[in-house]
Amino acid sequence: MDYFSTRASVRSYTSEPLSDALLTSILERATHAPNTGNMQLYSIVVTTTAEGKAALSPAHFNQPAVTSAPALITVCADVRRFHHWCALRSATSDGLYNFQAFSYAMIDAVILAQQIVTIAEMEGLGTCYMGTTTYNAPMIGRALSLPKGVVPVATITLGWPDGESKVSDRMPLDGVMHREVYHDFTDADIDRIYALKESLPENRDFVEINHKETLAQVYADIRYTKEANEHFSKVWMDYLREQGFC
Amino acid sequence: MDYFSTRASVRSYTSEPLSDALLTSILERATHAPNTGNMQLYSIVVTTTAEGKAALSPAHFNQPAVTSAPALITVCADVRRFHHWCALRSATSDGLYNFQAFSYAMIDAVILAQQIVTIAEMEGLGTCYMGTTTYNAPMIGRALSLPKGVVPVATITLGWPDGESKVSDRMPLDGVMHREVYHDFTDADIDRIYALKESLPENRDFVEINHKETLAQVYADIRYTKEANEHFSKVWMDYLREQGFC
Repeated sequence: MDYFSTRASVRSYTSEPLSDALLTSILERATHAPNTGNMQLYSIVVTTTAEGKAALSPAHFNQPAVTSAPALITVCADVRRFHHWCALRSATSDGLYNFQAFSYAMIDAVILAQQIVTIAEMEGLGTCYMGTTTYNAPMIGRALSLPKGVVPVATITLGWPDGESKVSDRMPLDGVMHREVYHDFTDADIDRIYALKESLPENRDFVEINHKETLAQVYADIRYTKEANEHFSKVWMDYLREQGFC
Repeated sequence: MDYFSTRASVRSYTSEPLSDALLTSILERATHAPNTGNMQLYSIVVTTTAEGKAALSPAHFNQPAVTSAPALITVCADVRRFHHWCALRSATSDGLYNFQAFSYAMIDAVILAQQIVTIAEMEGLGTCYMGTTTYNAPMIGRALSLPKGVVPVATITLGWPDGESKVSDRMPLDGVMHREVYHDFTDADIDRIYALKESLPENRDFVEINHKETLAQVYADIRYTKEANEHFSKVWMDYLREQGFC
């Protein structure tokens, strides 16, 4: 089995520090990932101080990995530096303050983030994405002093793994792959695609602990509710507007 | 020098086919990339027929790689399958039809796309992202019969490289990395960060051929114009609304 099939996210880290030489080597190599038009419309903010982590912690709903990891990497979509360059070179300097440019800057930032994850994991480090970044982008923006034209899109915790992490289940490939055109699944397909996930003891426990009938109800009623998603959709869109992108 | 520092995108492919076994192995391994809450809110549409490629070609402004690559991979943000599962399991089935859920589905899709690129390149294949995907998402959606809840976010061409590809320049790391908080660059910083890019013979030629004074003008006036970006912002936002996300 190769690295790619057996990797797992790591939420628990030893107290061993991460050297600056290794950290910057990982980030430097990651910048060679593909990006749109070689504009590199992203920035990386590295947090290693206790004060910096404490300032970010509430934005990530105080998940322990945020303060226990030696480094926190916030990857941002960033058109600001590019516009600064344009302004110094007699070029129109506001062409990227719109939703399309935000989207490709966001794509470039996520590609960079995943390259950081892969390189770090191949170096033996553990990583975890904080899914809270787009929920609480305005809080993160304030904690990191992000100016107009810069929006956080992914946060990665980075450190040496404390113990083994369990490899998560995934759907069979034919549950996510379509040939030539998209085909809708039948109810029987859905039963089959989700069978493994529903059968896992930890997921059955999850249903019981939460007093639900199905795993899907745990997701829909507790973890990713319509109400919370609609609230955070407004927060996120308002922030994109505030940062100049809508 | 390791793979990560020396990789380059490949736009030219030999006529050697890509075996289905290798293709599906790459895709299967890539699904082990991290994703939000293990919901796998993405789908992959694989195009290998001449008809399929021809249907997608105009959406990618007829870039030759689209029809010459043995496979085209369109990675989509997809909440549809998850909602189908919810509907079959007595769970609220419309909680992910909003902009926040679209954003994390998009992030998961891009993480998956970059994992496909890394695994494929490590297998010796060449890949290239088509930056046209978010511009022409509605055209791609029609060509691939994407239903409500599914939006294309990244397209990758995949095949065996024809010749060597040149490794692109990148900014020095301190041009994209900030410690603890974001710091704005001085004009002198910008001059230094962009010096390598501006000095490259191919970029100097690019300025001359386009009758411009600076490389920044080539980007702002020709490659990524404000007018085109504003047009494609509207097309993109309208499509997100049509697919149920705004």
